[in-house]
Amino acid sequence: MRPKLEDVAKLANVSKTTVSRVLNNRGYLSQETIDRVYQAVKELNYQPNVVARQLYKKQTRIIGLLFPTIANPFFGELSAELEKRLYNEGFKVLIGNSMNDPKKEAHYLNQLLTKQVDGLIVGTHNRGIKEYNYSHLPVVAIDRNMNQDIPVIESDNYNGGVLATTHLINQGAKKIIHTNGPIELESPTKRRRLAYEDTIKAYGLTPITVTVDFNIPYIEKKKIFTQIFKDHPDLDAIFASNDVDAALIMQVALEQGLHVPKDLLLVGYDGTQIIQNILPGLTTVVQPLEQIAQTAITVLKQRLNNEPTDTEYILPVTLHKGITG
Amino acid sequence: MRPKLEDVAKLANVSKTTVSRVLNNRGYLSQETIDRVYQAVKELNYQPNVVARQLYKKQTRIIGLLFPTIANPFFGELSAELEKRLYNEGFKVLIGNSMNDPKKEAHYLNQLLTKQVDGLIVGTHNRGIKEYNYSHLPVVAIDRNMNQDIPVIESDNYNGGVLATTHLINQGAKKIIHTNGPIELESPTKRRRLAYEDTIKAYGLTPITVTVDFNIPYIEKKKIFTQIFKDHPDLDAIFASNDVDAALIMQVALEQGLHVPKDLLLVGYDGTQIIQNILPGLTTVVQPLEQIAQTAITVLKQRLNNEPTDTEYILPVTLHKGITG
Repeated sequence: MRPKLEDVAKLANVSKTTVSRVLNNRGYLSQETIDRVYQAVKELNYQPNVVARQLYKKQTRIIGLLFPTIANPFFGELSAELEKRLYNEGFKVLIGNSMNDPKKEAHYLNQLLTKQVDGLIVGTHNRGIKEYNYSHLPVVAIDRNMNQDIPVIESDNYNGGVLATTHLINQGAKKIIHTNGPIELESPTKRRRLAYEDTIKAYGLTPITVTVDFNIPYIEKKKIFTQIFKDHPDLDAIFASNDVDAALIMQVALEQGLHVPKDLLLVGYDGTQIIQNILPGLTTVVQPLEQIAQTAITVLKQRLNNEPTDTEYILPVTLHKGITG
Repeated sequence: MRPKLEDVAKLANVSKTTVSRVLNNRGYLSQETIDRVYQAVKELNYQPNVVARQLYKKQTRIIGLLFPTIANPFFGELSAELEKRLYNEGFKVLIGNSMNDPKKEAHYLNQLLTKQVDGLIVGTHNRGIKEYNYSHLPVVAIDRNMNQDIPVIESDNYNGGVLATTHLINQGAKKIIHTNGPIELESPTKRRRLAYEDTIKAYGLTPITVTVDFNIPYIEKKKIFTQIFKDHPDLDAIFASNDVDAALIMQVALEQGLHVPKDLLLVGYDGTQIIQNILPGLTTVVQPLEQIAQTAITVLKQRLNNEPTDTEYILPVTLHKGITG
């Protein structure tokens, strides 16, 4: 016989309510009571019926987060924000860093399809994962278009592109290069590129976009940035696709003897707390990270409850004016 | 009756082996087969017996990671590394950001005690959590002393402190200030302070350690750093307790009209990839992050198997010489 709650109560010499309060961390409890209850839990090898309940309800109260890597400050801060808010709503958070690992992403989707997690929030960059095509999955995407059925939460990428490019032009830049992810990536971040190109052309200038894959190592990125300076010695500004790349560009420029902002104007994208604090001078487009996290959770809960949702949620960005551009 | 694997196989018109291969992502499978199997899973509302198996085996194959916040690059990169390696060993990873939240930490311990996770890797800063006192818990700590029973994985904090301090003295610094966490925090990182003080005294200088709690907001930290410059106008070097703080100190120094390294020598601690890449000039003590992650996992697996372990694992550090000190 599996031990029951009342067996724990009896052994610990407390009421069932007290056992339940200890196990659920509720109300004031003396350390002595807590110790007695856990001692009984241990002796009996008791497991509360949470797991059993999961089995019958087919609910785990676990949400999976799939991002390229939480080692990147944007995904690190976003995951921390999501976890904080999900925890407060009674969910636990499984994390998967799926950078360059479509098999791992497929595996987590498999977890979802077989009800081992209740829902997924995904912002990965892998392509061609067929499991997303099952309809009405409790999945929301951040900055990624997966299929018609999965809602996307994103910052206003187009306006971000306009803000950054217009700002550089107003500062006097004539030859502005934009870095962005691979064109074939199905992500609303492509709209930054579109906005950059539209704005550049509206001012009678020539757009030059250089592809920098988010998923390659820093050293490869630095090679690409070095090549940009070699190919375009008359370059006077860069609108980088994220703040970490902007910081790398600043390093590479310095190695080329170019000082920001004297010789090169620079605008980044993301506006994470850590970069804003260690490089407050970086001009950047700030994404509303808390609002993105909260919207993703609200929409995911609607999906879990089979309620209708919009297909796209676009949240406002702002320009932080530093001294780099 | 709950649907069984053979019901799925029958409906999808494939063998049971094929269903199992689809659900476990094993071997070559055509997209058509995958689709047929998942369609049947969905129609039957089938849930594989993983959850049931968990219930009887009392194993979840889930490891919880408890760190102050993955928004910090050290914990972000460490968590990413731990997740990658644990995933390869067949574990999934729950994450909890427990900064300033002892209740949340106690809650995750409760999950462990009631077998909802198999083990915990903790590097939190909360104090006075009594649940750790149950013996033989499958818990390992990173940079934290919890009790006699829980093994601690740490970098060689004492040697790190010696390397940083000796380096600054060799560069000609006379008045060197060290920043470190609260003295009452039970963490091996206190040995950096001890090493700094021992080294400073061995050279006939006066140690000055300023307390900076890791868990306070950036703005509060900046106030403390500003105060340091006000209190010690003759200061010529700082050995900061982590790289993010070092980067903040560089900003604050600049606001005070002090340039690094001309007016102030600066050494950090951690050597995360991101900081090394965006601030390659920062001289810092580099922790062996991959080795810390691997050791934590190896030791945790030993605990899970009831094998004996050491109580402390000290891993070597190196000094990265940049241009700040």
